[in-house]
This record gives sequence, structure tokens and C-alpha cells, in this order.
Amino acid sequence: MGLNVYLSGEIHTDWRERIIDGAQGLDVTFTAPVTDHAASDDCGVEILGAEDKKFWHDRKGALVNSLRTKKGISDADVVVVRFGTEYKQWNAAFDAGMAAGLGKSLVILQPEEHDHALKEVDAAAQAVARTPEEVVSILRYVLTGSLPG
Amino acid sequence: MGLNVYLSGEIHTDWRERIIDGAQGLDVTFTAPVTDHAASDDCGVEILGAEDKKFWHDRKGALVNSLRTKKGISDADVVVVRFGTEYKQWNAAFDAGMAAGLGKSLVILQPEEHDHALKEVDAAAQAVARTPEEVVSILRYVLTGSLPG
Amino acid sequence: MGLNVYLSGEIHTDWRERIIDGAQGLDVTFTAPVTDHAASDDCGVEILGAEDKKFWHDRKGALVNSLRTKKGISDADVVVVRFGTEYKQWNAAFDAGMAAGLGKSLVILQPEEHDHALKEVDAAAQAVARTPEEVVSILRYVLTGSLPG
Amino acid sequence: MGLNVYLSGEIHTDWRERIIDGAQGLDVTFTAPVTDHAASDDCGVEILGAEDKKFWHDRKGALVNSLRTKKGISDADVVVVRFGTEYKQWNAAFDAGMAAGLGKSLVILQPEEHDHALKEVDAAAQAVARTPEEVVSILRYVLTGSLPG
Amino acid sequence: MGLNVYLSGEIHTDWRERIIDGAQGLDVTFTAPVTDHAASDDCGVEILGAEDKKFWHDRKGALVNSLRTKKGISDADVVVVRFGTEYKQWNAAFDAGMAAGLGKSLVILQPEEHDHALKEVDAAAQAVARTPEEVVSILRYVLTGSLPG
Amino acid sequence: MGLNVYLSGEIHTDWRERIIDGAQGLDVTFTAPVTDHAASDDCGVEILGAEDKKFWHDRKGALVNSLRTKKGISDADVVVVRFGTEYKQWNAAFDAGMAAGLGKSLVILQPEEHDHALKEVDAAAQAVARTPEEVVSILRYVLTGSLPG
Amino acid sequence: MGLNVYLSGEIHTDWRERIIDGAQGLDVTFTAPVTDHAASDDCGVEILGAEDKKFWHDRKGALVNSLRTKKGISDADVVVVRFGTEYKQWNAAFDAGMAAGLGKSLVILQPEEHDHALKEVDAAAQAVARTPEEVVSILRYVLTGSLPG
Amino acid sequence: MGLNVYLSGEIHTDWRERIIDGAQGLDVTFTAPVTDHAASDDCGVEILGAEDKKFWHDRKGALVNSLRTKKGISDADVVVVRFGTEYKQWNAAFDAGMAAGLGKSLVILQPEEHDHALKEVDAAAQAVARTPEEVVSILRYVLTGSLPG
Repeated sequence: MGLNVYLSGEIHTDWRERIIDGAQGLDVTFTAPVTDHAASDDCGVEILGAEDKKFWHDRKGALVNSLRTKKGISDADVVVVRFGTEYKQWNAAFDAGMAAGLGKSLVILQPEEHDHALKEVDAAAQAVARTPEEVVSILRYVLTGSLPG
Repeated sequence: MGLNVYLSGEIHTDWRERIIDGAQGLDVTFTAPVTDHAASDDCGVEILGAEDKKFWHDRKGALVNSLRTKKGISDADVVVVRFGTEYKQWNAAFDAGMAAGLGKSLVILQPEEHDHALKEVDAAAQAVARTPEEVVSILRYVLTGSLPG
Repeated sequence: MGLNVYLSGEIHTDWRERIIDGAQGLDVTFTAPVTDHAASDDCGVEILGAEDKKFWHDRKGALVNSLRTKKGISDADVVVVRFGTEYKQWNAAFDAGMAAGLGKSLVILQPEEHDHALKEVDAAAQAVARTPEEVVSILRYVLTGSLPG
Repeated sequence: MGLNVYLSGEIHTDWRERIIDGAQGLDVTFTAPVTDHAASDDCGVEILGAEDKKFWHDRKGALVNSLRTKKGISDADVVVVRFGTEYKQWNAAFDAGMAAGLGKSLVILQPEEHDHALKEVDAAAQAVARTPEEVVSILRYVLTGSLPG
Repeated sequence: MGLNVYLSGEIHTDWRERIIDGAQGLDVTFTAPVTDHAASDDCGVEILGAEDKKFWHDRKGALVNSLRTKKGISDADVVVVRFGTEYKQWNAAFDAGMAAGLGKSLVILQPEEHDHALKEVDAAAQAVARTPEEVVSILRYVLTGSLPG
Repeated sequence: MGLNVYLSGEIHTDWRERIIDGAQGLDVTFTAPVTDHAASDDCGVEILGAEDKKFWHDRKGALVNSLRTKKGISDADVVVVRFGTEYKQWNAAFDAGMAAGLGKSLVILQPEEHDHALKEVDAAAQAVARTPEEVVSILRYVLTGSLPG
Repeated sequence: MGLNVYLSGEIHTDWRERIIDGAQGLDVTFTAPVTDHAASDDCGVEILGAEDKKFWHDRKGALVNSLRTKKGISDADVVVVRFGTEYKQWNAAFDAGMAAGLGKSLVILQPEEHDHALKEVDAAAQAVARTPEEVVSILRYVLTGSLPG
Repeated sequence: MGLNVYLSGEIHTDWRERIIDGAQGLDVTFTAPVTDHAASDDCGVEILGAEDKKFWHDRKGALVNSLRTKKGISDADVVVVRFGTEYKQWNAAFDAGMAAGLGKSLVILQPEEHDHALKEVDAAAQAVARTPEEVVSILRYVLTGSLPG
């Protein structure tokens, strides 16, 4: 058994690297959105031409990014969604909802301070983790049956 | 043609009432989550027994509420999601994602200040409205072909 | 047995009326797009605000109209698509493709001059009719077993 | 992440070659319809026997071609649909509709002169490109996060 | 609980009438193909114009009839398929296969002499009945819990 | 909003009656298996003829009962599964699994003594109740927003 | 592009070998039912124990064979169904119906004498071939665009 | 043709090893739940933190295990479910129900003493086997057409 895991959400800390590093040796394929903030914001107009209005500038970029997001989530066995301590992060919650709507397994990675605000998202998830290392432990256990320690 | 419309999101202003009132005479059936904040938070433990930990208190409630949310979204032709100016509102974005994952039509009701943060959600929607009255105009047009003014 | 029939395509002749009139007394529910050309083109900006660029003017309108189109096609048992003698009519062919993708039964109403250009569309259809009256005869036969004459 | 891309539409210019050449080095698998016009028109009768009527001649060919089209679209992550400046191109719009009905991501490649006529198709797409090179840039960005220039 | 039952297969004996009569008083809605043999064979050419070749004569009719068959089977909770003692009856077996492919419950009504030849069809069915009265007993039991005698 | 609720599981106590009575006045439609134990065991052979082997006697009955079970679960918004204190009750757990596989909401009604043995079933459920009255409270809250007491 | 092709139907002539031989060099994976008539009839009782009644003897075998048939059809892009000149062949028509219900492409291989009896099956197919060599030509054209001669 | 087989159920005897050993040389990929009883019970709290209540201790573990179970069943062509002679084994019956709800082929491995209690589960299965060796024989026959002896 191998797992295809999509890493959605926060792009300003190294949580993805810590999970990918920790999972070395496991049969996991990771995918993720483009995490270069500027490229992600401007991809639409950079490729398809400038827009006067910020609204359509954003729309073009979001639609181009959705080509990757949709592919990543659709192919995933497990979607891990990270909520950080800053920003609105509605795209993270949107990805979690889409994953739930498509019947994917969900793991949410969040600090305790968000527990109440994320209760609906967590209720659709198979696990709520606090650290990237816990996510790695879940993946290792699911694939090998080994527990930490 | 009639429409089944689920009204998701913010529960602290009268936007649902304004849409429902405005749509009188149209063939629309509205559903919505329980909008009594205290009941919504405590339904799990009130019905199924208290929990020591807030985390499981929230989980029980969120799961019971999901019975209604899932039914409402699954039966809807159109899901309207309102983002207000306060709170995290991750459950609203989660509902939007679930609606998208289930192939539902989406209308997002949001203030301009959220445009950038909601660009991924908006890109999955058929309309981004600024007022409940615009949502009513959309429903009227879709059902009757009549435009305002 | 009753049928839900969506009437897609050309909006400049009276073919829809002739089908609806001819089908009186049969257990058929008809739906259709908004057929007021000006309203259909401008609904997006009339309701949600003007756009400088014609491209986004059109986009807003097309997305609002898709709320109705999607509902109509999704609920239909049979989608009738009319190709007239003028205009590009790519939205008609798009509706036919969507109907096929959703597994709906298709009836195409077209003049002989379009036979070669429509061969891929026709090949996905259960019938290719030449007149609205033939469509009515199909609906009557399917519902009652009665043939004309 | 790799992408399976179906290239639908116009068969009289070199747009497919320009996309395939431009995408060299990317993890993309391309599929397309048979682009030999004569073979595509006559495949049905050449293999399965002649027909007196052009209508059934066309039907047999369109059905045989649909074996390839359906496989290509069903397996695709992204369907690129090219509208040129000539011909009816209803099969291109039909493919776009089928792709939308099956929940595929869509990129439309079209000249500006078709913008109004294609507005319903474009509204279902994740991108509207003007040149094959823009399509290549989209594929490169989606797969690698790199923007042109 | 009510049941929607499609009665497929043999059209030369009164088995449908016996089931419909026997089920009076039960909450069952019955649908069936057109059982007028001549109308069923000729509906295509009668409505849409004559064909020189019998093959296309038959094709046009079969496609028009499929509008009704598909609707009947798609809406059914239970598909009853009757195999008589004469004719090839491949359309009956085809309907059974389609019903199985769509996840419908199946009841097969057949004489013992066909048991071996129908073993694959029977293995996909919830019941193999010998008489229309047994089918009625099944419907009565499923809806009311009452057994005969 | 109305709910269609299937009541699966134990047939030897009055839990179904207590739920149905308690839910009077709510917009709920209840369905359930045949709860007459003898009829349920013997329906296959009573209708379709005796079998020498108990194994096939049971098979014929189980298949006939599945016509009702499948219809009930497929149409349900919520499946309530009751585990009592006696018997194997594998059909109850099977129904719960089928409901989960079909994406239905689940409520499990069980005594505490079964908590460990039912942990996988409970983990797929939206609520674990101890009494029929708690199930009624859930239904009332989901439909009206009212909490007990 | 490669194709997965399931070869259903007649097991007494060499049509499968002729297709497989003719398709050498093409990117096609073929699957088929067990074509050893005795093994196919007796597999159930040989593996799982004898039955007194022929009806259950047949049932056990048909269910075991359905493990292979279902896998083959579910994985197929194209289902080829051969109707020969002898036997009832209801399992062939059943496979065709199941393939149609699952949205698979269908090619029917049949002698002219069966054209009228197979008209409903043919109407769901993309091609009706007369010889195994025509089926090979279809596969070659679909995969390579090359026509015979 | 290769098969993906999920081995669900009893974890206290060597039935999985006997099937896997017996199937050596066949094109079968086996998956299974974590069969280390202690790890399976405690994985949730070991990875994600201790719980005071056994109920939530169990819930966390069951949810983590469901990541593996869901992946295994979703990818399987055939789900084999073993019922032993001890314990409640409701998770085994739940897996069987989920497999049936997802349209998977089912093989049940059970002692005769459970035949009556498992009749609903068996009625959804393609085979009821008594020994692991019979399961191997089924897999060998399905893949190669060879019968034992």
C-alpha cells in the first residue's frame, strides 16, 4: 500500500518540508499547491495578460491555480490541511471542504487556539494533529503499523 | 423551475431574512443551519451528555450540526455563502468547498475587503454579490428572466 | 411516466412554443434558458455591477445564466438542442456535450444543411429531428406509445 | 505530479505541435483525436462497409471516432479546446461541454473575435488563452510553479 | 415506502397485467416499454422518416425506444425482467445488465427450462420467480411485510 | 426541511416505536426492515418455494429482504442503527457499513457495554446515542433547532 | 493512448484469438471470461462444495465467474461483445447492458441474421462489426489513425 | 488481469498468511488492516495524545485506522472478510457493508455455525468460503481459469 497525500494550506512556514523529510523511506507521494506567494498571486496575469481590476487579476490567478489544486486533491488518498496562526486561510478551509465533498480522508494540522473555530472542519477529519511530526507518525502507522517510541 | 437554496455562513446579521423576504413570490425553498449560536455550540452535549474537554464538547456539537448541514447542501441547487466582517468563518469556507466538491452552484456574498482572501472561493462560484438584494435579483432572474429596474 | 425536458439552443424562432403547444395534454415539464437576448447578455452587469471590459461583462452574464442552465440540464430526462441556420451556436453544442457527459438522453433539432457539421453531436443523440412537430411526436410516443397519423 | 492533457478542436493548423514541442521536458501525456481529416470522415465506412446515405456514412464515422474521443477526455486531467477562425466547430464545443459535464479542468484557446460567441464555454473554463505558447506556460506553471520571463 | 417498478421483457403474454392487477392497493408505480410490437418496431421511421436499409430502420426505432427504456430503468427501484419461451429476448437480458450496472434491484421471471442459460443474469438478481403472482407476493411482502396464505 | 430516516437493527424491543412516537409533529418519514422475525426468516421460501438446505433457505430470504433494505437505506438522509444486548447483529453492522459507503449520515444507538466493540462503527457516525429519546432529540434539533429541557 | 478491451460472449469459436493476434503491436490489453466451458460451469461447486440442485450448482458458479467478469468490464475502455449463431447467449447481452450502464464504449460483433434481434443492443454501441478483423481495424484506427488498405 | 484484494476481519489466527502464501505466483496485491491488536487499539492516543475517557481513546484510534481501511477497501477489486468464532466482529461486518455500498466484489470466509447470523452479509457476496485454501482457489480460478485437483 502506498499513499498519495496532498499538503494544503499555510505557505509561510516549513511544515511541508518537515513532513516530507520525516516521511522519507515511506511509500508516500506528496503533492501541494505552488507555494511561491508572488507567483501564486500573479500567475494568471503573467501568463494570460494584465487586468486593470484587482478582482479579475485575482480571478485569473485563482483559476489557473485551481488546475493544480483540483488535480492534487482529486488524486489524493489523504488531504492534510495546515492552519497557521495568521491570515484568513479561507482557501485552506475551502480545500478541506472540497476534499470532504469528494470523500477523501482528511488530517488537519492546527494550533490549539483554533480548535473552536475549526470544529466543523475537524469533525469531518480522521485526525487533528498539532505538529508535522504527528502527521508523519500517522502516515508511518497507516503504512507500516509502527507506532513512535 | 423551482430552486432549493441553502444559506450558509454568518449568523449575526439579518442577511438571511433579507434574502427570504426579498424572494417572496418566487419558487424558492430555503434551508439553512441552526442560527441560534448557543444552541449550535451546545447541541451535542445538551442531547448526548456533557464532556470535560472543550475539544470533544465541540466535536459532539459539530457532528450533530453536520446532519443538518449535509442534508441542506446535498439537496440544494444553489448554495449561498455569506462572509461577514468578523470571526474566522472557516465553516463558511468549508461549506463552500463541500458544495464545490459536490458540483453545486455557488453564490458568494462578501464585502470588498475580503476579495483577495476569498479569491479561490470566488473562482469556484457563479456569482460574487455584495448585498442580499443582489442575491435576490439573481434568484429572480434565474427563475423568471426579469432584471431589476 | 412523466418527462422533464430541457429546450436548449436557438432563441430567435418560435420552435420552443411549437413544441410546448404541441405537447399539451402530455405529462411533460419544460424548462429552458432565458430567451430574452438582451437580458441574457446583460444580466451579470445589471445585477452585479458594470465592467469596463466586454470580456468580463460577458463572463459575469454567462456565469449567472449557468445557474439556470445547469439546473435545467441536471434535472432533465431529455435535452432537446435546436441548431438554427444562423450564428455560431457554440453554447448549444456545449449544452449537448454537457448533457451527454451527464448521461442525459438527447434529441437534436437541426436542418439538413448542418448534418455533416453536427455528426459528432448527432452520434451522441437518440434522435435527430427536422421539425418541432417531430419532437412532439417523439415525446408523445415515448409517453403514450401513440404514433402520428 | 504529472498531467494527462487532451487536445480537442481545430485540425488545420499546427497548434497541437506547438504545445507538444513547447511542453518537452514537462511530465505531460498528450492525447488528441485523429487529425487526418479524410480518415476521420471516412473511418466508419472504410472499416465497416459503405453507406448510400451521407447521414449514416457520417454516423458510422462519428461513432468510431467517439471511441477515441471518449477515452481521451475520460482519462484527461485537463482538456484544451482550440477554436480556430473557420468552420462550425460544433464538435469542439461539444467536447468542451462533455469535459465540463465530467468535471474536467478546461483551457480554451481562441482568438478574440470569438469571445462573445464563446462566453458560455469560457465561463466553464479555468483559462482562456490566445496562443499555444500561453497554454504551454500554464502547463509549466501548474507542474513546476515557474512563470515565463 | 413506495416502489417504482419497471417491467421489462416479453410483450406477447399478459404477465404485466397480472402483476399490475395483483398489486392493486399497494404503493407501487409501474412503468414499462411500449408493448405494441408494430409501433415499437416502426416508431423511428414513422416519426423521423423512412430508411431504405432495415438496419437503420431498426436503429432509428431502437434509439427512440431507448428514451423510454432509459427513463424507466433509471427511475426504478426494482426492475422485473420477464423471459418467455420464444424469441431471442436479448433486449431483456440487455435491460437486466443495464439495471445491474446502475445498481438497481432485479427480479427475474422465467420458466425452469431457462435456468441454466440465465444463470449469470439470475446471479445478479434478488429473486427468481416462476409466476407473475410470485412477483406480486414479493412486492406485497417488501412493502407490507405480509406473506401469502 | 424534512428528513427520511431508516431505522436499522434490533427487532426485539420497542425502540422504533419510541422514536416514531417521540417524533410526532416533526417532518420525518420513517422506514425500517420487516420486523416480524418469522416472516423475515421465511419470506424467500414462502414465496418462491422450499429449499432442502438451510443455507439456501436463508439466502432466498435474505435476498428478498434486501429489496426493502436497499430501498430504505438508499432513500434515507439519516440511518439510525440500533445494537441491542443480544445476538450477533452482523446485519446491523452491515447496514451501517453500507450506509457509510453510500455517504449517508449515521446515528448509532447502543448501550455503553458495546462501546469498544463498536468503535469503528461509531467513528463513522455523526452521533452515538444511548436511548431512543436522545435520537428523537437529535431529529428535533436538526429539523427545528430546539434543544430539550 | 492505450486501450483496455474486454472480450465478452461466444466461447466456441476462435474470434478472440483472431482479434488478439491481429492486434499484435498495438497498445491493447485484452481481458476475457474463462473460456473453458466445463470449468466455467463447475467452478463454484469444484471449489466451494457440491450442490444437489442444479439451480444452486449454477448459482455458485455464476457468482464466482462474476468476480472476473465484473473486474474485466469495470477496468475496460471498450467492451467487445460477440454473438454467435448458436445458444441463448443471454450472458453476452447482459454483459453488454452492464457495460452500457457503466458508460463503457461498446463494439458488437454479430452476423447479419441477428441484426433485428440485437437492435436495442446495437443502438447502445459505437460499432457493429461482422468479422474479428473489422474489430482489429477499429482498434488500430482508434489507437493510430491508420485505416486498412 | 491482476487483482487487488483487501483482507478484512479476524486478527487472531493465521488465515491471512495462509491466503497470501497460497496465492504466491498469482498476480494479486494484498492489503489488510494493522493486525497488531495493541497498536490498533492505541494508535490514536499514542500519536495524538492521551484521553481520559475510553470512548475518545477508542474514537481517536478508530479514526486513524480508518485512513488505512478506507484506502484498502477503496482500491480493492475484491474484499475478503473473515468471521472467526470469537468476539463481536462488528468491524468485519461494517467493512463488508462498506464494500457492498462501494460496489466491490465480496468473498466471506466463515464457519458453518455463523451461517444463519451472516445470511444478509452472505447474500451480498460472490462467494462464501470455509477455508483460506478455498479463497486461494477462487483467486487462482478467477485469474487463470485453473480449478483445483
